[in-house]
Amino acid sequence: MTTQQAMQAVENIMIEVTKSDVKTLQDASRHILSAGGKRVRPRLVMLAYSALGGTDYIYAAPPAAAIELVHTASVVHDDINDHGVVRRGRPSVNAIWGRTFALLTGDFLFTKVYELMAPYKDLNIDLAEATVALVEGETLQAAAVKENNFTREIYHQIIERKTAALFKAAACIGAKLAHADQTIVEALGQYGYSIGLAFQIVDDILDLTADSAQLGKTSGIDLAQGRGYVAAYSHNGHQAAGVAEVVVEEADPMMSIKQRLLQGDAISEARMQARGLAQAAIAYLDVLPESQAKHELIELANMVVDRDH
Amino acid sequence: MTTQQAMQAVENIMIEVTKSDVKTLQDASRHILSAGGKRVRPRLVMLAYSALGGTDYIYAAPPAAAIELVHTASVVHDDINDHGVVRRGRPSVNAIWGRTFALLTGDFLFTKVYELMAPYKDLNIDLAEATVALVEGETLQAAAVKENNFTREIYHQIIERKTAALFKAAACIGAKLAHADQTIVEALGQYGYSIGLAFQIVDDILDLTADSAQLGKTSGIDLAQGRGYVAAYSHNGHQAAGVAEVVVEEADPMMSIKQRLLQGDAISEARMQARGLAQAAIAYLDVLPESQAKHELIELANMVVDRDH
Repeated sequence: MTTQQAMQAVENIMIEVTKSDVKTLQDASRHILSAGGKRVRPRLVMLAYSALGGTDYIYAAPPAAAIELVHTASVVHDDINDHGVVRRGRPSVNAIWGRTFALLTGDFLFTKVYELMAPYKDLNIDLAEATVALVEGETLQAAAVKENNFTREIYHQIIERKTAALFKAAACIGAKLAHADQTIVEALGQYGYSIGLAFQIVDDILDLTADSAQLGKTSGIDLAQGRGYVAAYSHNGHQAAGVAEVVVEEADPMMSIKQRLLQGDAISEARMQARGLAQAAIAYLDVLPESQAKHELIELANMVVDRDH
Repeated sequence: MTTQQAMQAVENIMIEVTKSDVKTLQDASRHILSAGGKRVRPRLVMLAYSALGGTDYIYAAPPAAAIELVHTASVVHDDINDHGVVRRGRPSVNAIWGRTFALLTGDFLFTKVYELMAPYKDLNIDLAEATVALVEGETLQAAAVKENNFTREIYHQIIERKTAALFKAAACIGAKLAHADQTIVEALGQYGYSIGLAFQIVDDILDLTADSAQLGKTSGIDLAQGRGYVAAYSHNGHQAAGVAEVVVEEADPMMSIKQRLLQGDAISEARMQARGLAQAAIAYLDVLPESQAKHELIELANMVVDRDH
């Protein structure tokens, strides 16, 4: 099994499972799916599976596709709440089809997760828990925005649930599909969890430093909504109240907040933490025998922190 | 097992499974759940199970709770799209917590369905398919509203998917939990499907004829959005274009549409159809031996069409 073949199997399943005679659901689902995306989560499933000796990608691909659909559903719903108009370099589902259909498209993708996972009894509790965590993380984030209450601790709780939990589940599910021992499953889970945290920290840095064309999504949305994640790093764990003040003072509050953060050491500190997490993740892979897949898992950890989009 | 005990077990599971340290999700979920609702779907599961000899309601209650959570999640999301402010006699989740948290609460309830169904491998494909149908039905409905294209055929497709599919799954799952033969499962499925259609037709009639206090939800929402479901009955299968004309002409379009429909034979024709479906449903129960549960299934079919809220 080459990784490319495995990932093609995942793509095929996602296209197949979103077939519907309800044209809007099929069109909107395939619009967001065919725009690509980094596919880090299903890649994690397939690489963990392969690194532990798995070779049957027809068997392993449906849970990998299900995990990507959980992420995709949450992205479609997130763009409703954030008024995101660009996603993966294309107009968002929300921008093209409007709120009602975007909401239903997200629901449709969530229901397709059940369908794909139905035959995998012992694994779907892992995915269920990670999906609950994802929704909880999104909710903690919305609550922190509303209450303008971002601390490092709250930021950590948010990214742990909204991102790291699903990365962890992806790696664990890949290992379990290969019938790995519990200690191996746990090590892979720690690998997934660590690169999940790193991935989100880098995402939030890029949201501050990159432009929309580079990101392929509306940049600065998180900050625009007062989400100053990275701001948490420049306040040493205290409430990022300064952010709100600037918003009131300045003609272009977005630029002003960006400048404050870019001038301070918040960004470099956050990037350093992400690198540390990626290194820790790679250390967890010591339990694996040498293989092409292990090599790619190491590369994946590095890519997560070195990427520019 | 008394039905009351079984239904109490379902309630307990729904409260237990919506426990979360993310206060908004727990509060909003329990707000909508504790408001009651008719609980027709889980009752269907438990009665079908019991009528086929099932006695272990600890085993049968989680899938019944999962089915009610699918319905509840869809109701919470529906109130976002419809701007519904009253639900089950209380302010809707949307009205209290706002759109962002309502969207996430619906997602949370959907994810709890996975969690509850995870151990029931052979049943969760039934629920997955019904949930897909529900989302497809909601989407067909939104599309028909947008295009002002309601015919009897489209109305039938909508209610079949958005309501009857889940009723059918509820009855099938109840029968399968009791390890019933395939022919019995199918007969119960037809029973569920028929009362599902009847239930939705009566819901749409009540939306026209009852007031909000009686319904416990914002009445006339469906019509207000141009949904003239029942209007399909007064146009003999042709497009209900007349509805849109009235909206433009009249000072209070809602009242005018209501009057048109109430004066014609649309309502009585739709109610007659609902009664016919309930009778057909009861006939499918002939495969069951006599029992208290069978008696209650017959009562349920009658209640569905005779209710005033």
